[in-house]
Amino acid sequence: MHAYRSHTCAGLTKDHVGDTVRLSGWVHRVRDHGGILFIDLRDHYGITQVLCDPDSPAFAAVEKVRSEWCIRIDGEVKARSPELVNAKLPTGEIEVFVRDIEVLGASKELPLMVFGDQEYPEETRLRYRYLDLRRDEMQKNMILRSDVVSSMRKRMWDKAFREFQTPIITASSPEGARDFLVPSRLHPGKFYALPQAPQQFKQLLMVSGFDKYFQIAPCFRDEDPRADRSPTDFYQLDMEMSFVTQQDIFDTISPVIGGIFEEFGGGKKVDTPLEWPQISYKDAALKYGSDKPDLRNPIEMQVVSEHFAGSGFAIFAKLLEQDGTEIRAIPAPTGGSRKFCDRMNAFAQKEGLPGMGYIFWRDQGEGMEAAGPLAKNIGPERTEAIRQQLGLNVGDAAFFLGGKPKSFESVAGRARNVIGEELGLTDKDRFAFAWIVDFPIYERDEETGKLDFEHNPFSMPQGGMEALMGDPLDVRGYQYDLACNGYELVSGAIRNHKPEIMFKAFEIAGYGKEEVEKRFGGMVNAFQYGAPPHGGCAAGIDRIVMLLAEESNIREVILFPMNQRAEDLMMAAPSEPTSDQLMELHLRVIPQE
Amino acid sequence: MHAYRSHTCAGLTKDHVGDTVRLSGWVHRVRDHGGILFIDLRDHYGITQVLCDPDSPAFAAVEKVRSEWCIRIDGEVKARSPELVNAKLPTGEIEVFVRDIEVLGASKELPLMVFGDQEYPEETRLRYRYLDLRRDEMQKNMILRSDVVSSMRKRMWDKAFREFQTPIITASSPEGARDFLVPSRLHPGKFYALPQAPQQFKQLLMVSGFDKYFQIAPCFRDEDPRADRSPTDFYQLDMEMSFVTQQDIFDTISPVIGGIFEEFGGGKKVDTPLEWPQISYKDAALKYGSDKPDLRNPIEMQVVSEHFAGSGFAIFAKLLEQDGTEIRAIPAPTGGSRKFCDRMNAFAQKEGLPGMGYIFWRDQGEGMEAAGPLAKNIGPERTEAIRQQLGLNVGDAAFFLGGKPKSFESVAGRARNVIGEELGLTDKDRFAFAWIVDFPIYERDEETGKLDFEHNPFSMPQGGMEALMGDPLDVRGYQYDLACNGYELVSGAIRNHKPEIMFKAFEIAGYGKEEVEKRFGGMVNAFQYGAPPHGGCAAGIDRIVMLLAEESNIREVILFPMNQRAEDLMMAAPSEPTSDQLMELHLRVIPQE
Repeated sequence: MHAYRSHTCAGLTKDHVGDTVRLSGWVHRVRDHGGILFIDLRDHYGITQVLCDPDSPAFAAVEKVRSEWCIRIDGEVKARSPELVNAKLPTGEIEVFVRDIEVLGASKELPLMVFGDQEYPEETRLRYRYLDLRRDEMQKNMILRSDVVSSMRKRMWDKAFREFQTPIITASSPEGARDFLVPSRLHPGKFYALPQAPQQFKQLLMVSGFDKYFQIAPCFRDEDPRADRSPTDFYQLDMEMSFVTQQDIFDTISPVIGGIFEEFGGGKKVDTPLEWPQISYKDAALKYGSDKPDLRNPIEMQVVSEHFAGSGFAIFAKLLEQDGTEIRAIPAPTGGSRKFCDRMNAFAQKEGLPGMGYIFWRDQGEGMEAAGPLAKNIGPERTEAIRQQLGLNVGDAAFFLGGKPKSFESVAGRARNVIGEELGLTDKDRFAFAWIVDFPIYERDEETGKLDFEHNPFSMPQGGMEALMGDPLDVRGYQYDLACNGYELVSGAIRNHKPEIMFKAFEIAGYGKEEVEKRFGGMVNAFQYGAPPHGGCAAGIDRIVMLLAEESNIREVILFPMNQRAEDLMMAAPSEPTSDQLMELHLRVIPQE
Repeated sequence: MHAYRSHTCAGLTKDHVGDTVRLSGWVHRVRDHGGILFIDLRDHYGITQVLCDPDSPAFAAVEKVRSEWCIRIDGEVKARSPELVNAKLPTGEIEVFVRDIEVLGASKELPLMVFGDQEYPEETRLRYRYLDLRRDEMQKNMILRSDVVSSMRKRMWDKAFREFQTPIITASSPEGARDFLVPSRLHPGKFYALPQAPQQFKQLLMVSGFDKYFQIAPCFRDEDPRADRSPTDFYQLDMEMSFVTQQDIFDTISPVIGGIFEEFGGGKKVDTPLEWPQISYKDAALKYGSDKPDLRNPIEMQVVSEHFAGSGFAIFAKLLEQDGTEIRAIPAPTGGSRKFCDRMNAFAQKEGLPGMGYIFWRDQGEGMEAAGPLAKNIGPERTEAIRQQLGLNVGDAAFFLGGKPKSFESVAGRARNVIGEELGLTDKDRFAFAWIVDFPIYERDEETGKLDFEHNPFSMPQGGMEALMGDPLDVRGYQYDLACNGYELVSGAIRNHKPEIMFKAFEIAGYGKEEVEKRFGGMVNAFQYGAPPHGGCAAGIDRIVMLLAEESNIREVILFPMNQRAEDLMMAAPSEPTSDQLMELHLRVIPQE
């Protein structure tokens, strides 16, 4: 017989009754029923009930085992009596009578229990991650993550992509976030950097003629931790293609992402990938107040400025006299009660706005009545015109926000989410996708008045060089995000592969030729030797798994995550280097005051 | 029609004759034959001959293109006349008459040519890697690498392994080599380390109950560069299993590795995986003078001390009076000529030994004659006994080395290689594998006399605690390597999962409990909470691909390698950080004297 097991703890059925078997695993739970010891023996695959009566030669040894001891047992498979069959367990029809036991690994007293649903502080869970990971939910999350990644690979291979590994110890690639640096021992005073993304390398691969690239790529950003972001490394499904248009990228990656959600989404409805809408950045801001709208929520905001211009509602009327202002409405079907409307108004105030005006429509015996102070101020005609524009009816409400869109758009977006949630309009059993397109290349910093890149600087401007000669703020890029249920899952672009357009684009953002060559020299040089048009995208794997696992904390889908202070308590990282190490790296730590 | 291509440059055949097509790619070669321009247009998939005569509206534009310009052409597919068909090209039956052309990316003058076989200095190749990678051989090597890695994944999945990603920014894991350190911004004066291997994490995964793990794992060692080693990061197929014996590991991984060589070995014979011999470390040293023997070479060394003890060959006879000395013979079938024997003797001298005695047997009219001074010194009887022991005959030779085995073993091993090579005994069309087993756990440092771990400190000693109570130098580990054609491809062990045995093992090597807890705390703590028996191995991917691609320089199988000074010339890494970056990391560079 094998030294440790003839079967896994999920492997025994009625067919094995009478067999002598060997199992290894962990003591999930041990109970004493009238002098007979019952152990739920657990391994990665399942649980088998084993039991030991005082007649067994192993009884004295079995009596000693405790939760989470790792043991090996030999015993005989017996059928459970019908009333004791556990239909929930694959092994629920049998039990194993222990004749021999070996303790493979005993356990000290447990700082956290594997069995049961007790909650533990995150610090405890991370410090004893190897125990935490034994819990059923964590096993499932990690298996899900592994299976999602495998499925991504298979789907990319099926589309004739090859995976290529790009360097991890490399050059600084300033893409907005902070680099992790790695001091060079051989070159005193110089540092490598860990890549924030394989952006430059995947573009270099296209210049090298590889045509189709993907990678499950580790990315490194030294950012301050938060719930949905790892403070150190995270993974992307990174891809790039040559000789493609934006639509080619959508047609390639949509079925991959959609397929993943079909496969692992637990039966929730997944929008058909090739029918995912394309929504311009501008429309997304207007209709959803977000560039990653949650389209499970049917609410679409609308501009209703005309109904307030010159109206009796002085606040809005005056506002509209200023340049660049608008009034927008958030329709709230079934939200037609004062209580609800007041709650939403309070929400807006909590978010830092003066409030949200509202109108709601109720049945008033002889017909519909528009309620709320706003309706009174603007009068029945304008109120009715608004109702008709928004397609609302008795029992519905609408909320109004005004000003320069930038000042209220994001609050409007959040209000839309809350309204959708509270009114039960948001379809929880669905993954709703949309490509957000036509991102502006530039934005103006409100404080400094300076132009800067809105996203990353590598995207091709729509209209090429000609477009860059006009108003920079009008320039849209071949740049896109995939939104799903309110999250940005994918981000990408058709790249700017023409050196002269690239230099011009940087010049507009205030970067001289020399600086561009210094910061992105590898890529910019390469573009001078026959660069193909190319584009691609990257999908955030941690976030996709979070969505599929219905977790809101990224640490629930990472095996050995850092805590919120970017520490690994289990491995004691970071730690103080030895003075020899510092010496070899030619570094001195500056003492803290 | 698609913006860039209706077909790839490998896609057109006779079936397309008459079609108007669109192709994109690079100008591989351009020739002018009697006023007609012939372009070999190349993309990732192949080459298509396109041509342009002066009547074409595109002629003036086509005249301008040069090698490695990236272009898009439209044209009509025509059949080549029979005498011009190129049977070597999949597209060799057709050519495309250009009607329209667009320059997608022009090129400056080329620092290295993609077309042709010209050799360039490595520095040039690495600086312009994106051009170098366009060359046919590099495309093939990188495709091979990618396909090998994919095949590894599929083979591991087929064996019910899941891939799990372990942390890259983590704690120092001293395993012999030097760590790369990463300064922490949030914790002044503290550093993370990049893992030399996921050793501790994969063992923690076993303690976490995951049963079967693998990873195509990036590993980081700050080692001085050499031809077959990357100075920064390299990749391993890393795997680990719970509840297994050493034989289980062999049975699992042998078919994976063997399968890879079957699949990508270009038809060379691959030894049947489940029949790979297991050779003890001791026997390997004796028979092959190496713990990574090249078994394509049939030569096996033998101990022949008895024939020299008390013989007339005073050097060996005296040597044998000292403790721990031996005389070993390297049989050299077909090596029976003075010229060859003298050359081998000179080889040994070049390797730092006084020389290698030899005997060779030749036909001397009436029978066999043993030639060489050694034969004379020891006389015919002993000479004949040696011949019989070694199974040699007329036309063969044998070489002899004596002393303490450690002093000559490795030279003997190299001599065996050279003899096998020179005599054509080594079968070049074969991948010959063997598991080298029973490595000693400890070795004594010749200079300090101190005991230290021979390999890594995590292996289970054969015989467990009891064995550690005896002579440490007698302790063998469940520790193994896979040798192939003279290279170590895989290394692994059944791990020491029992804390008390682990502490004892470290104590023997001079590490106190506190130091062990400090250096390997994550793992040692985990072992106190019900650790399962487990083991695994790691296979060097770069080396496997090198063998398959028949390359002897690791940089030929890595996309963007560092040069021998650990610099990336293309990306300018490492580079000087900004003073802001250093400030944020609380570091100061120590000026060099």
